[in-house]
Amino acid sequence: MNKLDLKILKDELNHNLLTVYKNGPKSLVEPINYVLSGEGKRLRPILTFISANACGGNHRDAFPAAISVEILHNFTLIHDDIMDNDNTRHGKKTVHEKWDSGTAILAGDAMLSLAMINLQKCKKNNSRINKIFVDGLLAVCEGQAIDKSFETKSTVSIEEYIKMIDYKTGHLIGMSAEIGALSVSNNNIFCKSFRKYGRLLGRAFQIQDDLLELYSDAATMGKSLDSDFILRKKTYPMIRLEEEHPIELNNALKLIKRDVKLGKKSIQLLLLESGIKNEIEIFIIKIISDANELMKKNNLYTSEIKNFSSLILERKK
Amino acid sequence: MNKLDLKILKDELNHNLLTVYKNGPKSLVEPINYVLSGEGKRLRPILTFISANACGGNHRDAFPAAISVEILHNFTLIHDDIMDNDNTRHGKKTVHEKWDSGTAILAGDAMLSLAMINLQKCKKNNSRINKIFVDGLLAVCEGQAIDKSFETKSTVSIEEYIKMIDYKTGHLIGMSAEIGALSVSNNNIFCKSFRKYGRLLGRAFQIQDDLLELYSDAATMGKSLDSDFILRKKTYPMIRLEEEHPIELNNALKLIKRDVKLGKKSIQLLLLESGIKNEIEIFIIKIISDANELMKKNNLYTSEIKNFSSLILERKK
Repeated sequence: MNKLDLKILKDELNHNLLTVYKNGPKSLVEPINYVLSGEGKRLRPILTFISANACGGNHRDAFPAAISVEILHNFTLIHDDIMDNDNTRHGKKTVHEKWDSGTAILAGDAMLSLAMINLQKCKKNNSRINKIFVDGLLAVCEGQAIDKSFETKSTVSIEEYIKMIDYKTGHLIGMSAEIGALSVSNNNIFCKSFRKYGRLLGRAFQIQDDLLELYSDAATMGKSLDSDFILRKKTYPMIRLEEEHPIELNNALKLIKRDVKLGKKSIQLLLLESGIKNEIEIFIIKIISDANELMKKNNLYTSEIKNFSSLILERKK
Repeated sequence: MNKLDLKILKDELNHNLLTVYKNGPKSLVEPINYVLSGEGKRLRPILTFISANACGGNHRDAFPAAISVEILHNFTLIHDDIMDNDNTRHGKKTVHEKWDSGTAILAGDAMLSLAMINLQKCKKNNSRINKIFVDGLLAVCEGQAIDKSFETKSTVSIEEYIKMIDYKTGHLIGMSAEIGALSVSNNNIFCKSFRKYGRLLGRAFQIQDDLLELYSDAATMGKSLDSDFILRKKTYPMIRLEEEHPIELNNALKLIKRDVKLGKKSIQLLLLESGIKNEIEIFIIKIISDANELMKKNNLYTSEIKNFSSLILERKK
């Protein structure tokens, strides 16, 4: 198995993303290249490479799959940002903010077709990869629909929340890993292991995201954060606070209306003193540790997988 | 070759469309089934059946392709209606009007995945059909992007306009015919002929649509029409009027701002007296006649193709 230089791979990936769509109407070429030149972490395509490599294949064979998952991910961001009315992403204006909603809808739609056109370059297991990809797209839409439905629900259980993030975030990361494996191998145990690993990592990633949003400022996260508060979004920490300390949470939410900074501080304190912050951090470690165990059991725990898990666990933004 | 009972096929199609998405979040299941139960003409999937049948195949083998093109078509309508701010479609409220923009964006995205999931049921030429389908999706997006860009352009030539409708309307109808042929046959001449036939029919269909919008009322067309006027949309008749009678057109457009009905009447009169209405009608006949000739040349001019061409030529809404 080769050692992967993830820095070089990320550069190559970024370079390739900018060659995906050069000829077309200006009103599509500009926003699409604007989005694809963003400062994303490229976690999903990197996982695609890592999984192809861990299966003993040449990670280069997973390039089309890697490009397609990154385009698909960016498609979801453009459309989600319209729905959530977010105006910043990766430290830049969102597409609907820089252009308009119509441009953002259409750029997203076109990106979806680009992702699927590109996916046809997969040489091995092409139709199986295609099936997983379109199933993944439906799962992401369903996850987003469930997330939106939470906005008008008075209470959401942790089980409902986990189901939602498994659809909205887990499926796509699981898919990124699975189609990496499928790009180089027909081994079903490999595919299944990577799918499960990715889904668990996705779950951990999202719960951690919820926590980071509460502790970071917009500048660090590179996206607008206060909209989540305004929407009183049901995130993992908020659901746990609602379960354990509804009165104190309600007071903090009232405070947010008057003073966002102070309200946020008060929620942070509540999470710390109640032990919920600690509980969540342990839960994230447990999910990632389960994912690592799965890989160890199937002899897929390469140094890259180990590093990837740590990267998710230790990220600060 | 069997004789197709299009009435029965349409009923079957409508029935099948309602089985496509039954289990999922309510906020997706409801709008998607609302749209798919609409009173559409189902022209595209019917053409898919007709072309499969004309190729000597069993039209039943084209059922997955037919369902997928109709879902794709409806996806474009949902998203276009948001962009164009149209509130009525097929005599019913549009999705973003009945629910909200977020729901409409997401329902459209999910429909796209459903179309592609369903497309995998094609037994013959599956990957080729898939390729044509995703290329078609990109073409539709590009057509819509060009159309939107016309809104801010001071002049649009007839050539630019034809290119736009070939992308926005022609590609999808051409694809509907082509994948019908591919569902039952590997004959490249068949595929190519049907693609060309469909694209020509699509071109005629769109120019006719422009004319019908000027002569019908919203109730007949089942969609909101005045928005096009307000946007001063560049349609075939409007471009021709702009070329030949700019001053009179400008006066009529000024009149529309004060009195839509009167302004519309004045444009109708202008089209009639200038001979442009007649010119356009002859142009439409010529396109459809070219399409028919192509089919005759390749021995594909079945009674159903003949009827389909006439249906497009003679439609009143």
